[in-house]
Amino acid sequence: MNPETVAPPSPAVRSEAAERLTGLATPPGALGRLGDLAVWVAATQGQVPPVPVERVRAVVFAGDHGVSDHGVSAFPKAITPAMVRTFLAGKAAVSVLAAQHGVSVRVLDLGVDDDLEGVDATVTAFKIRRGSGAIHLEDALTADETLRAIGAGEAVAAEEIAAGAQLLISGDMGIGNTTPAAALIAASLGLPASEVTGRGTGIDETTLSHKTALVQQALDRAGDRVADPIDTLAALGSADLAAAAGFMAAAARAGVPVVLDGVISVAAAILADRLAPGAAAWFAAGHRSTEPAQSLALAKLGLEPVLDLGMRLGEGSGAVAAVPLIRSAALLLADVALLSDLG
Amino acid sequence: MNPETVAPPSPAVRSEAAERLTGLATPPGALGRLGDLAVWVAATQGQVPPVPVERVRAVVFAGDHGVSDHGVSAFPKAITPAMVRTFLAGKAAVSVLAAQHGVSVRVLDLGVDDDLEGVDATVTAFKIRRGSGAIHLEDALTADETLRAIGAGEAVAAEEIAAGAQLLISGDMGIGNTTPAAALIAASLGLPASEVTGRGTGIDETTLSHKTALVQQALDRAGDRVADPIDTLAALGSADLAAAAGFMAAAARAGVPVVLDGVISVAAAILADRLAPGAAAWFAAGHRSTEPAQSLALAKLGLEPVLDLGMRLGEGSGAVAAVPLIRSAALLLADVALLSDLG
Repeated sequence: MNPETVAPPSPAVRSEAAERLTGLATPPGALGRLGDLAVWVAATQGQVPPVPVERVRAVVFAGDHGVSDHGVSAFPKAITPAMVRTFLAGKAAVSVLAAQHGVSVRVLDLGVDDDLEGVDATVTAFKIRRGSGAIHLEDALTADETLRAIGAGEAVAAEEIAAGAQLLISGDMGIGNTTPAAALIAASLGLPASEVTGRGTGIDETTLSHKTALVQQALDRAGDRVADPIDTLAALGSADLAAAAGFMAAAARAGVPVVLDGVISVAAAILADRLAPGAAAWFAAGHRSTEPAQSLALAKLGLEPVLDLGMRLGEGSGAVAAVPLIRSAALLLADVALLSDLG
Repeated sequence: MNPETVAPPSPAVRSEAAERLTGLATPPGALGRLGDLAVWVAATQGQVPPVPVERVRAVVFAGDHGVSDHGVSAFPKAITPAMVRTFLAGKAAVSVLAAQHGVSVRVLDLGVDDDLEGVDATVTAFKIRRGSGAIHLEDALTADETLRAIGAGEAVAAEEIAAGAQLLISGDMGIGNTTPAAALIAASLGLPASEVTGRGTGIDETTLSHKTALVQQALDRAGDRVADPIDTLAALGSADLAAAAGFMAAAARAGVPVVLDGVISVAAAILADRLAPGAAAWFAAGHRSTEPAQSLALAKLGLEPVLDLGMRLGEGSGAVAAVPLIRSAALLLADVALLSDLG
């Protein structure tokens, strides 16, 4: 694959937006990060003033991970299908936040280790396999599965954009998923397991040591293959993470901005930016999670989070919680009086 | 005056809310600060689960400051009445944010140095004087004016609560107002001017040195009178700041929570907590501003801000921007599935 570089949001529109920001009836710089976000939103839209960011769509990519059978999580993998059903019932945290903000949420089973009997067929339409491989022992996916998962994410992005999305969010559900996410980030940033491995849903010190050892074992097993993004996803990722990476890369190629969530979403973003270099210019960081790999990856992508609330839930929750602030940014740049109007 | 201690939000309800939080279908602690806020909101409401925080009302207390004629601000005081008119036109930054979030905004002239000709009489109904005194040279207010301003704030809070407010916000408008705000915080915390004085709307190094000297001169002039909160407001405050302090103290006495904004709002909160000891338990910090005195005062009040976006606009803007997150907190605690429901 020859990755095609993604053009950034319009530099000309960015300049025009920055100039309008300076002319608002507020002291220079007084809007802080909201001002920066407003300029970014305008540039992604290609227009000044920006239009309201009304249609925001989140997709939760669900999947299980073989490594969760090896003592890396505080919860059993049976939670994954139970939570998929909770999303469908609109009772997960991200569902509640999305309902508050008028954000649509679509949950897709890419690799849940369960048949999800009785669940609507659209939920499993993109399923790649039941559980991805235990990455410290084997590849997460075959080469063919990896390409199919990336393609699934790309297809879903195209569907969401066709449905009118002005802003996309990639959420996650899957017990054990911080382990492959940490491995993907370590592999992409050239870091050892000890710097990226975190407590996930809340493991103790002993379990953290064990998890760190498994992440390092996975990195050692993958070896030089991590030089290629698709090989990286096959060796260290999962069906859901590969789909999320494809989803974000496709959004950036189509010129639709994405708000990132926690460590799973940011791991996928790192891979999206490797699949489609320059994609990160279309991403904003919704929040800072407590996972060390997330902050390291955001720094690599050059992104500063909107929120820093100590959240570590995943699901897309931190990204959806940041949506009103991104909307505020666009509204402020469009609707605040200009200094020249004050007289 | 014998300040009456304000009882905190119900500890019993707080415990019950914390217990419900633990039982949600999320890993323990995964909601981070949103979980803490949810418990606080429930306690202020006296019920678990909390009801949605729908009716949020902001009051902008506007006023001028004699010190603004002495080279402490980047802007001339003619901006104050111009901005009052901008609020009334719904074109200020806080107006735009409030419209987004369905928050009502009421602007009141407590001490603008202008007659605001043609403006609706309700805006000036609580006016104390045209411009408060230059605090490095003279008292901001007489004893009588101070009590009337505090009383005005109390009356306005009562009106807003009668109108159904579940959450109140105190905003500000007034060129030069970071100077008395810094002085009030320094006086209340026992700090020198050098630790509290900031750049306000964006002054240069030379002007900052001059502003710091004037704040210290004001503190030296006030002397021991800062031991009493009402004397502190008379010597170092202003009509708008005294009204905001009365507003917040009255809200806390009535058991209605308040979201704080930047340094002006937090200076008023410090005085409110001195007028009505314990009031701070009814306050949440909306955001961290770039003014050093704001962070010092929040630490004194034991409050951690929801947002940290480098905003320094005032008007109530940072508090209104935080409203969707406070609403999220209440909704999450009420609507997310319980672990016991997952089966």
